[in-house]
Amino acid sequence: MTDFTTTRRLFDIPQGLVYLDGNSLGPLPRAVPERVARTVTEQWGPHLIGGWNACGWMDQPRALGDRIGRLIGARPGHTVIGDTLSIKVFQALAAAVALNPGRNVILSDTGNFPTDLYMAEGLIKLLGPDYRLQLADPEALEDAITEETAVVLVTEVDYRTGRRHDMARLTATAHARGALAIWDLAHSAGAFPVDVTGGNADFAVGCTYKYLNAGPGAPAFISVAARHADHVEPALAGWLGHDAPFAFEQGYRPGEGVARMRVGTPPVLQMAALDAALDVWEGVDMTALRTRSLALADRFIAAVEAACPALTLATPRAHDQRGSQVSFRHPEGYAIMQALIARGVVGDFRAPDILRFGVTPLYIGEAEIDRAAEVLAEVMDGALWDQPEYRARKAVT
Amino acid sequence: MTDFTTTRRLFDIPQGLVYLDGNSLGPLPRAVPERVARTVTEQWGPHLIGGWNACGWMDQPRALGDRIGRLIGARPGHTVIGDTLSIKVFQALAAAVALNPGRNVILSDTGNFPTDLYMAEGLIKLLGPDYRLQLADPEALEDAITEETAVVLVTEVDYRTGRRHDMARLTATAHARGALAIWDLAHSAGAFPVDVTGGNADFAVGCTYKYLNAGPGAPAFISVAARHADHVEPALAGWLGHDAPFAFEQGYRPGEGVARMRVGTPPVLQMAALDAALDVWEGVDMTALRTRSLALADRFIAAVEAACPALTLATPRAHDQRGSQVSFRHPEGYAIMQALIARGVVGDFRAPDILRFGVTPLYIGEAEIDRAAEVLAEVMDGALWDQPEYRARKAVT
Repeated sequence: MTDFTTTRRLFDIPQGLVYLDGNSLGPLPRAVPERVARTVTEQWGPHLIGGWNACGWMDQPRALGDRIGRLIGARPGHTVIGDTLSIKVFQALAAAVALNPGRNVILSDTGNFPTDLYMAEGLIKLLGPDYRLQLADPEALEDAITEETAVVLVTEVDYRTGRRHDMARLTATAHARGALAIWDLAHSAGAFPVDVTGGNADFAVGCTYKYLNAGPGAPAFISVAARHADHVEPALAGWLGHDAPFAFEQGYRPGEGVARMRVGTPPVLQMAALDAALDVWEGVDMTALRTRSLALADRFIAAVEAACPALTLATPRAHDQRGSQVSFRHPEGYAIMQALIARGVVGDFRAPDILRFGVTPLYIGEAEIDRAAEVLAEVMDGALWDQPEYRARKAVT
Repeated sequence: MTDFTTTRRLFDIPQGLVYLDGNSLGPLPRAVPERVARTVTEQWGPHLIGGWNACGWMDQPRALGDRIGRLIGARPGHTVIGDTLSIKVFQALAAAVALNPGRNVILSDTGNFPTDLYMAEGLIKLLGPDYRLQLADPEALEDAITEETAVVLVTEVDYRTGRRHDMARLTATAHARGALAIWDLAHSAGAFPVDVTGGNADFAVGCTYKYLNAGPGAPAFISVAARHADHVEPALAGWLGHDAPFAFEQGYRPGEGVARMRVGTPPVLQMAALDAALDVWEGVDMTALRTRSLALADRFIAAVEAACPALTLATPRAHDQRGSQVSFRHPEGYAIMQALIARGVVGDFRAPDILRFGVTPLYIGEAEIDRAAEVLAEVMDGALWDQPEYRARKAVT
């Protein structure tokens, strides 16, 4: 049984702060500063170019990929890190479309995170006018899969509401209709047990700066199903995905399996942070994490619904239909969130009216949940959010 | 006048090491460890998600882009950092092809760095069979530009020989024949004065871990000519290149100017290192740097040619035809370089037979040049390279 008072001591969180925004940017794991510092002063400094071999930098994208793979149910050797999630979405889409010739529709849903849709738009411009992006409402996505669908691009957990798609079911429907399925695990990896192998996902992508706590701008990951790994033709055919990068051949030959999904030089300092952040997960039982995440979320929902009738729950109540966040709607959501943040309870706001609270049992317990509900009730009861300084929008929220 | 004994004190280079591989990975600037450490512990740690605003992370890709822009002669506001050089090559190529409809050839030369060619191959697979990649010998590149050429993709300095293309002339020819020109400045930025505005480059891309010393896996940059900046249709249409990323609109609308060349979340720790590394350049006169680089390179060429008749100079002798490296050929180049490295003189080897020495006046002076030539002569005179441990190839060199 995982002891979550132990995991919490692995994070450096400001005293008194209730941080419910780990689904946007995870807090600093205590092991990160030293790991990063040593990478700079004991690796780059003395080893210089030799660090690529001597310090294992060149192999880290696959080693780190496998560490993440264990958290998402991927087979060893089928996950690699690098780039950003947007780039990994593009890679997966281009690969899937090429694997499914004669079908010209990329299907997604209106609950997907915008960058996934934007990357699909950009890819389609390159592919030409035969291709199109089709968007369905989330609940109509399954029915929208047709014989025209090349690939379904799904973010498992809706970034606004926390609504969760059923990976195994949607993927089975996609496959039954001849389509492939790409799963964006941005709000899944580290949030609950994921099983991309059992769920039969063709590709899975995600970021590591949310529930995996690897820091601002941490690299993304991509996982390719074993049945595709040696057939994928990379569109972003970078030299580090080549079968022999240091042979400097003029023509591209893809590397073995998921190695071909590497592109350029990996970010060594960010990889050091990611590696240290992943240490936190050693010994964490993902089923226990899920049980606790749901209990804490239910506790928060109950407390807020009891005390704040003006807020409307946006997250599905059914456990199997949600991720690890709780969202409420209110027309003044932006100002309410600013007032909360000013009182040391940090969630975030998503347009047009969503107050979003990430539930992250590694460092959030009953005390923080109760405190957050209490402060939210104070803010709502006293209309404390109705101040010009809370209503004035900042460029980045 | 720049004092290069001062700049050298800004780097932390192992005692006694002669490091002539700054054209592969620059050494550690002394200001980097503290800057990175503070970004971790004083920014990410206490500010958490608020760091994107409070610590300026969100604006850094453009601010850092402008700092690099000054070193390559770009107009302010036209350069942005992010991703890897491979990705930036892809972005520039996709943008250039779209700006030049009706022309279907991407032209490059056999001296280009392989990843540039691979990324072109990958793009062409997406664009379809109407498009093709044409390669010319470097010296025949200009003549190969025809009315079919959509874009010429040129790496200014050959990574093996150090041979330098004439940016103004090649670009003028390209424009006269209706083609666009992309310049890869991997071995130019920080190596000598570059003038992408005067040279009329349509796009310029480069990395920051070589002569700019920003560390392993440091982000790349892209600069877009003012005449194109508001017309480019990004193929890698990421949310941070959107006009209003935090409005979370479903459709992509490109941001203003070069901002649209941003893709995903920027790597905050690597940006901290880059920012500190760029401080070294404050007050450096690029013309003085070039004068000194050429003098040191000539000194090295003269010493090696006098003492090592078995080595053949691969770098052009004419100053205006080379970058800031010196390369020699020898069939046993790999073993020779291993023997040199074992004796504290670090250059690198590039297949099939190139010994490559980067000349970086910020931290290399006459003493290092003389020592390198002396050790190279010892290795050649005594055939000291002819040992099994030097001849056995490692995976990464």
